[in-house]
Amino acid sequence: MENRTNMQIAMQLGAGYGIDSGAWRMPGGDPTAYTNMDSYVKLAQTAERGKIQMLFMADTPALGVDLTNRPPQSPMDPMLALTVIARETERIGLVATLSTTFNDPYNVARQFKALDVISHGRAGWNAVTTSNQAAAANFGSQVASRTERYERAHEFIQLVQALWGSWEEGAMTLDVENGIYANMNKIKPINLGGKYLSSHGPLPIPPSEQGQPVIFQAGGGQEGLELAGLYASGVYASPYDIPSAKAYREVVRQSAVNFGRNPDEVKVLPGFIPSIASTEHEALERRKHLDGYTDLTGKVSYLGAMLGVPLSFDDIDRPLSPELRKYANANPQDPRSPRALELVMRGMTIRDVLAHGVINYHPIIAGTPEQVADFMEEWYVSGACDGFAIQPDASFDGVSAFVDQVIPILQKRGLFHKDYEGTTLREHMGVSYQYGLRL
Amino acid sequence: MENRTNMQIAMQLGAGYGIDSGAWRMPGGDPTAYTNMDSYVKLAQTAERGKIQMLFMADTPALGVDLTNRPPQSPMDPMLALTVIARETERIGLVATLSTTFNDPYNVARQFKALDVISHGRAGWNAVTTSNQAAAANFGSQVASRTERYERAHEFIQLVQALWGSWEEGAMTLDVENGIYANMNKIKPINLGGKYLSSHGPLPIPPSEQGQPVIFQAGGGQEGLELAGLYASGVYASPYDIPSAKAYREVVRQSAVNFGRNPDEVKVLPGFIPSIASTEHEALERRKHLDGYTDLTGKVSYLGAMLGVPLSFDDIDRPLSPELRKYANANPQDPRSPRALELVMRGMTIRDVLAHGVINYHPIIAGTPEQVADFMEEWYVSGACDGFAIQPDASFDGVSAFVDQVIPILQKRGLFHKDYEGTTLREHMGVSYQYGLRL
Repeated sequence: MENRTNMQIAMQLGAGYGIDSGAWRMPGGDPTAYTNMDSYVKLAQTAERGKIQMLFMADTPALGVDLTNRPPQSPMDPMLALTVIARETERIGLVATLSTTFNDPYNVARQFKALDVISHGRAGWNAVTTSNQAAAANFGSQVASRTERYERAHEFIQLVQALWGSWEEGAMTLDVENGIYANMNKIKPINLGGKYLSSHGPLPIPPSEQGQPVIFQAGGGQEGLELAGLYASGVYASPYDIPSAKAYREVVRQSAVNFGRNPDEVKVLPGFIPSIASTEHEALERRKHLDGYTDLTGKVSYLGAMLGVPLSFDDIDRPLSPELRKYANANPQDPRSPRALELVMRGMTIRDVLAHGVINYHPIIAGTPEQVADFMEEWYVSGACDGFAIQPDASFDGVSAFVDQVIPILQKRGLFHKDYEGTTLREHMGVSYQYGLRL
Repeated sequence: MENRTNMQIAMQLGAGYGIDSGAWRMPGGDPTAYTNMDSYVKLAQTAERGKIQMLFMADTPALGVDLTNRPPQSPMDPMLALTVIARETERIGLVATLSTTFNDPYNVARQFKALDVISHGRAGWNAVTTSNQAAAANFGSQVASRTERYERAHEFIQLVQALWGSWEEGAMTLDVENGIYANMNKIKPINLGGKYLSSHGPLPIPPSEQGQPVIFQAGGGQEGLELAGLYASGVYASPYDIPSAKAYREVVRQSAVNFGRNPDEVKVLPGFIPSIASTEHEALERRKHLDGYTDLTGKVSYLGAMLGVPLSFDDIDRPLSPELRKYANANPQDPRSPRALELVMRGMTIRDVLAHGVINYHPIIAGTPEQVADFMEEWYVSGACDGFAIQPDASFDGVSAFVDQVIPILQKRGLFHKDYEGTTLREHMGVSYQYGLRL
């Protein structure tokens, strides 16, 4: 097994509040975080203090949620937000999602390479296809077939990498004495085209300290695995338990091998949500406090569907009746349901069961810093992952709690680095230098 | 005539060096300015110290020049450069060019409105069509007909403005106590479409302190005038003398009137290049010094063509022979040629004639701060313009020379404001508040 002493951690910044939909209302937080870059910068600087390898901005170019009771899920603009952060941090990696479905390769190549140069080699691109109908409509388009989206994604990523390499290393001479700004023999058109896309180039941006941005992937299915195996150095994933995480990581690694790459060059980072307090009881109180800021009606129904019994919001503060408990069963299609059933059977109220995070998209660990570190260690040493993409419950104090309380434990256990390995994202991740298209 | 006491000044930052192709070699300058955001920030802060209303980034999404002896003409990325500057300045306006030909309205609307919010109401968009073949090839496209480009530009600008207005003022309630993040009755799809483009919306970004970004225009011809009259609050122009500038400004103002707008709402800003020194002689020496850093062979031939006589680079340090002077004449197609002929007839060497800037794209004023201020005053009070888009010869000391030596003269003469009128670009420019599409 590969080196297991440098767990990779990505801190997700989202719209600036945290993953819990009530987080924007937490006392001490910043309700304006979505539009206030100072809040983003503060979170980024805190993450950097913890030597966290990268920030990660998920993104969909569409609103997608009803904002009556909750904030947006994406930043105003991921590239501009990371540009702000680039100038006000020194080391931490800066990864943004941009769609290969609704952009032009030249524009994407240009903005990411500019960010890479501005940040002195810290940029990463999470290249995703978009199947969201609302996003398609924003671009006057329809959702394309999966086949077409992924064919286009291959062309898109190859064009972007080729454009990145079109200004060769050493092209920028800056020879003031002899008046030679650049060597034009090393700045060449790419003239590449495919079925959907083409670009002539060159892109007039020199290499950064890491050459070019690191590529990430987050797509599922066979097509997503191929993109990951061919191009990605990092994969954001959503397994819910260790067996499914291990299985997923193995197929990602096999995909890299299939394309002639070293599997250790592809880091798989499952998402999880820590809710940290000094005792497990307090952590659950924190979760219930957060839940109290949002409307749980839908979550109560969802829990009922997961367990095959009708649940009413009016009963949220009671345990399930003996009658309902008799009929409750774990939906075999949902890996989260056995845990939900177990908590219900222990006689917890519905509110307490929900506070344990049994119906969230990612696993929730509500507990002490040691319990969070235990969870991370167990997944990591069992080979379920190469690290994690952390979704803070409420960012304003959740990021600092993770950095100040969990990171030191991981460091003491020899799982997480004590300082950045270098100055670039590639160095932090321990992935190879790459410049231009890898063929 | 409208108010003549608040001359508008836009400082052009380009690739960070200045308009002279040898500027990157000037001792004391920064040869790495293209990739070094610290240099951009320093120039921006200097311009802000001079209360200059706005920075302006011209842009074409293509290399376009041979970099052997000169730097690029555009920034690595205009939006990212202005985002950096937004965080490290307080008041100065931030205007970038983005093409309506090779972008998507949703992406352009999103990035400009995000920049407007990040900068607290200082963003402006110079909306141009692109007829550059190299740029088209970067997007796998051909240059479209002028008609098609301008039809598309109208649709594009209208979609962008409609998206800007799709999050209505007052929609963002941030009512922490009652848990109401936003009023969804005020965040509505636009569902607008035309012949080339459409978008559903909404764009989930609230208004900035100035509502939405200011629109600028720089296109020529009848089609460009229509765009200016319909949408623009500022127009970047390239007249070479007062009569042509006056005539151009009049047709721009008439175009605004034709579309039911107050002509004072459209500020026409011709470009010019100041070369400032303590005497006129020293200013010309500065120009010759800058010329010495670049290859003048092409400029000598160009001057010859302008005057209808063959000129050789070998004779650059001699006046024209009496024989050549006999045949020299001012090309009536080129407004710059009478001035070139006049200088030649005075017996100047070719190098000295070129140093006066007779063949540059914009007028060059090489002289004392008073001479530069005299030029500006003459154009401004004669109604040739509403201000200027300044192209520093070499930025690293040219911006500070303008700010520290010319601005105080303009202020003393009552032509230029002594402080910013407010905090937003609209306030600096004295143009009306606008939110959403103006119909």
